[in-house]
Amino acid sequence: MDTFIDHHVRVRYAETDQMGIVYHSNYLIWMEVGRVEYCRAKGILYRDMESQEGILLVVAEANCRYSSPALFDEEVLIRTRIGDATPRMVRFEYEMRSGGDARLLASGFTKHVFCNRERKATKLPGMYRTAFGILGENGRG
Amino acid sequence: MDTFIDHHVRVRYAETDQMGIVYHSNYLIWMEVGRVEYCRAKGILYRDMESQEGILLVVAEANCRYSSPALFDEEVLIRTRIGDATPRMVRFEYEMRSGGDARLLASGFTKHVFCNRERKATKLPGMYRTAFGILGENGRG
Amino acid sequence: MDTFIDHHVRVRYAETDQMGIVYHSNYLIWMEVGRVEYCRAKGILYRDMESQEGILLVVAEANCRYSSPALFDEEVLIRTRIGDATPRMVRFEYEMRSGGDARLLASGFTKHVFCNRERKATKLPGMYRTAFGILGENGRG
Amino acid sequence: MDTFIDHHVRVRYAETDQMGIVYHSNYLIWMEVGRVEYCRAKGILYRDMESQEGILLVVAEANCRYSSPALFDEEVLIRTRIGDATPRMVRFEYEMRSGGDARLLASGFTKHVFCNRERKATKLPGMYRTAFGILGENGRG
Repeated sequence: MDTFIDHHVRVRYAETDQMGIVYHSNYLIWMEVGRVEYCRAKGILYRDMESQEGILLVVAEANCRYSSPALFDEEVLIRTRIGDATPRMVRFEYEMRSGGDARLLASGFTKHVFCNRERKATKLPGMYRTAFGILGENGRG
Repeated sequence: MDTFIDHHVRVRYAETDQMGIVYHSNYLIWMEVGRVEYCRAKGILYRDMESQEGILLVVAEANCRYSSPALFDEEVLIRTRIGDATPRMVRFEYEMRSGGDARLLASGFTKHVFCNRERKATKLPGMYRTAFGILGENGRG
Repeated sequence: MDTFIDHHVRVRYAETDQMGIVYHSNYLIWMEVGRVEYCRAKGILYRDMESQEGILLVVAEANCRYSSPALFDEEVLIRTRIGDATPRMVRFEYEMRSGGDARLLASGFTKHVFCNRERKATKLPGMYRTAFGILGENGRG
Repeated sequence: MDTFIDHHVRVRYAETDQMGIVYHSNYLIWMEVGRVEYCRAKGILYRDMESQEGILLVVAEANCRYSSPALFDEEVLIRTRIGDATPRMVRFEYEMRSGGDARLLASGFTKHVFCNRERKATKLPGMYRTAFGILGENGRG
C-alpha cells in the first residue's frame, strides 16, 4: 500500500457556509491541493506535466464521506496516496484530519483518466510511471 | 421510484478552470441547487426549514461520476430525485445533462443526516415527511 | 447614459458564509453573470467572441460597495450597463438589488481591457463596437 | 505608515478559469487570508474576536486593480497593512506579488465596519484597538 503524503491548509472564511462549517464541495478542492502536493513530493510538477507534456488528469469520479465538520481558521491535514494506477488511469485516496486534535474530518477518493490536450484518453508517458507507482504496461506493480 | 424535478442553470465563467471546462467541485454546488429546487417543487422552502424549524440537512456523503465536460455559457439541466429517505436521513440522486443536446454530463448522489441547530442528529418533523416521501416511522413508504 | 440590462439569480447555499450572508467575493461573480447577459441582450455571445474571434475581456479593476447583505435563497436582480467604452477598454457598471423588496444590495464596476488570445492588449473588432456603444475610433459616441 | 504583514499562498487549480489565469474574484479571498494573517501577526485571532467577542468585520467596500495574471501553482505573496482605522471602521490595503519574480499581480483595499452579532454597527472593544493601530477615541493615532 502506498504511503500518504501529508500537506496542511488553513480553513478560509470564504470556505464556510451559513451552517458555520466548511461547505462540503470545498473538500474536493482540498483533495486537488493534496494531489498536486503528492506529485510534487514524488518529483513531478503537475503544472509542467500539463503545460509541457500535455497530460491532463481529467476527473472521472469523486467521492467524499464527511465525518466531522471543519471550522474556520482550523488547520487541516490533507493525506494523499495512490490507491490504484495503470497507464490509463489513476485513483487517489484521501484522508482529511484536523491539524489540532487529529479527528477525521472526511475521507474520499478521486479517479482520473490520463488525457491529452484535446481531452482524449491517452497513456501516461513512461517518464511519469514510476512516480505514480506503475511498474508494468498493464497496471500497478 | 421518485420522479426527477428539473431545473436549469447556466455555466458561469467563474466555474471553468484552465482545462477549459467546468471545475469538478462545482457539480456538487449544482446538486445543492437541484436539491433546493426539488424541495421548492414539493412545497418546502429549504431556507424556512432551516431558519424556522431548525432542521439542517448535513451532508454525510457526496459522489459524482463525470461523463462529459460542461462548457462555459452552456445551459445545464439538473435533475433531482429522492433515492431513499427515512426520518433520520435522505439520499438525493442527480443527473446533469446539457440543456442543448441532452448529453449526460454527470450523475451522482448526496446523503444527508437531519440535524438540529446544534448539528446533532434528529428526526425530520412529521410536517415534512410526505414531501420527502417518508410514509412510516422506519423508512420510505 | 446606457440603460441597464436586468437579470436575476438566486442565492446559493454555497455562496453564504458563517456570518449567515453572501460572502463578498461572490458579488464579482454575479457581475460576471450580468456582463454576459448584457452582451447576450445586445446580440453578442461572449463565448463566441472569445472562442471564435479570440477577444478576451481581461479584468483590469473591480470595485464593489456593499449596502445590504444578500441572504440564502433570495432572488437577486443584477442590473448591468456600460459606463464607458473605447476600442481599447470597457467599463461596466452594476447594481444588485433584492428581487423581493428591491433594496440595494451592492453597486460597483469592472474595467476590462480587450486582449487577444495571448492576453495582449488589442482593439475590439468593428463588428462588436456598436453593441458596446462605441461610435468612433477614439471613444464612446 | 503601517508596515506590511506578509503571507504566502499557492494558486489552486480550482482558482484558475478558462483564460488560463486566476479568476479575478479569488483575489478578494486572498485578501481575506491576508487580513486574518495580519490579525494573527498582531496577536488577534479573528475567529475568537468573532466567536467570543461577537465582533464582525462586515465588508463595506472592496477594490482590486489587476496588474499581471497569477498562474496555477505559482506562489503568491500577500502583503497586508492597515491604511486607516477608527473605533467604527478599518481599511486594509493589500499588495499581491509573485513569490517567484516579485512582479506585482494586484493591489487593492477592503473597508470594513465593526458590527455586533446582529450585524449592527458597533465600536471595536478597547482590547483590540492597539492591534488595529487605533490610539484615540476618534481615529487612528
